[in-house]
Amino acid sequence: MNYNEIAAQIQQKKSFLCVGLDTDINKIPQHLLSEEDPIFAFNKAIIDATAPYTVAYKPNTAFYESLGIKGWMALDKTAKYIKEKYPEIFLIADCKRGDIGNTCKMYAKAFFQEMPFDAVTLAPYMGKDSVAPFLEYEGKWSIILALTSNPSAADYQYVKDADTNELIYEKTLKYGQQWGSEQNIMYVCGATKADKFEGIRKIAPKNFLLVPGVGAQGGSLEEVAKYGMNENCGLLVNSSRGIIYASNGEDFAKVASEKAKELQQQMATLLDTCKK
Amino acid sequence: MNYNEIAAQIQQKKSFLCVGLDTDINKIPQHLLSEEDPIFAFNKAIIDATAPYTVAYKPNTAFYESLGIKGWMALDKTAKYIKEKYPEIFLIADCKRGDIGNTCKMYAKAFFQEMPFDAVTLAPYMGKDSVAPFLEYEGKWSIILALTSNPSAADYQYVKDADTNELIYEKTLKYGQQWGSEQNIMYVCGATKADKFEGIRKIAPKNFLLVPGVGAQGGSLEEVAKYGMNENCGLLVNSSRGIIYASNGEDFAKVASEKAKELQQQMATLLDTCKK
Repeated sequence: MNYNEIAAQIQQKKSFLCVGLDTDINKIPQHLLSEEDPIFAFNKAIIDATAPYTVAYKPNTAFYESLGIKGWMALDKTAKYIKEKYPEIFLIADCKRGDIGNTCKMYAKAFFQEMPFDAVTLAPYMGKDSVAPFLEYEGKWSIILALTSNPSAADYQYVKDADTNELIYEKTLKYGQQWGSEQNIMYVCGATKADKFEGIRKIAPKNFLLVPGVGAQGGSLEEVAKYGMNENCGLLVNSSRGIIYASNGEDFAKVASEKAKELQQQMATLLDTCKK
Repeated sequence: MNYNEIAAQIQQKKSFLCVGLDTDINKIPQHLLSEEDPIFAFNKAIIDATAPYTVAYKPNTAFYESLGIKGWMALDKTAKYIKEKYPEIFLIADCKRGDIGNTCKMYAKAFFQEMPFDAVTLAPYMGKDSVAPFLEYEGKWSIILALTSNPSAADYQYVKDADTNELIYEKTLKYGQQWGSEQNIMYVCGATKADKFEGIRKIAPKNFLLVPGVGAQGGSLEEVAKYGMNENCGLLVNSSRGIIYASNGEDFAKVASEKAKELQQQMATLLDTCKK
């Protein structure tokens, strides 16, 4: 999936919503537990209910791996279901892998060939070698952790380079510009740091930013849009718990749909007012 | 598995060898391809052949994930086989995960509960939150990427902190001392940087160091032992390709055993001469 296709879908749906499929067997509605594959049954219902309002889905692989083989099967089925039924929706494996070389190639095979993901999230501690092998896949994306919103983000991301006076997260943004382009690199930028988005846009004006943390994690959608949006929107804003666990009754899919629609409508307004 | 148990096994086997199970379906002997699970059949033979000379096994999860569900099943079977037959051998999931909070807990469940791994490797770009949830498991280990030997390691690891004059990899070593102790934290330190081991030992005198890159990747075992060994050995030196692909004929397990024994014998000598 290329940049223009993502941008076009955002315009068409008037949405830059990414739904995080952080599906936890302990949080899904009880009545699904009798299904053969409760995780997939839940995901399928959530996907069908939210697809009209959503431009991206993002399963976090940890939730699936925690269930062992059954979980990996549910992830595989979920990815294939999305890409068969909604091929226009951008599909992110939130796997935060951070290996190099030959091993990266194996991860690329896992997510881009064995499963039909469009993108992976990556932890860049080992530098360019952690990202380059993924960029060899035409139409696939690397989403690099740049600035996150967790309490200990400062342990590395706010360290200042003595040689260049750049902060580490700024270096990450610049590296991404060198390693690839806005056609294959996105960045994870935490939503509670909306004041940082202006600086981020100076370094990476065109790239899409994947923004977790709106909703349950406390970020403001308005601020993110105001400071982070570019002429192609350039944002994918994720919500997980606020949508998928909005109800844990039999109406869970209907309520998820309503919550997704609410966010989509806010996004439609912001697309009109914030576009640069 | 605790520190003393690892140290005792090293003394008993006169070995600090970790065998990397980077099992690639395209590199294993042809005759195994008719097996129901060729990857597991290969691993089982390699494990039984090398166990007398080995104190740790380290499957890199990427190789298994690249095969989809079948690969994940082979990983699961391999981990369980090792821990059932050789419970004294330290078992590392080389998964280089780098997430936080709730998601880390899910990865911990995947590797420490669903599968019987003793340790995971972790990429620390998001700081303490990437490691802390794993440390809640008594007797389990976090092995943090500190100094790697890949060409682009310098992109982050050699950046100097303007406030403290420390290099990032030195910060990582110090963080590990704060976040946990030598009882639950190890570090990945690349073997081609043997000249750096003296400095590493000043910061982390007691921790075990997981050293990849001896053999195919060009590190010198003698140098690593000379500068990296502490009073409990404190080293796990990995070899993957040099052992597991030493032959791709029907004698692959026998040749792997010989290669592992060769390394073990060098290690026995180094344990006598280098111990601090």
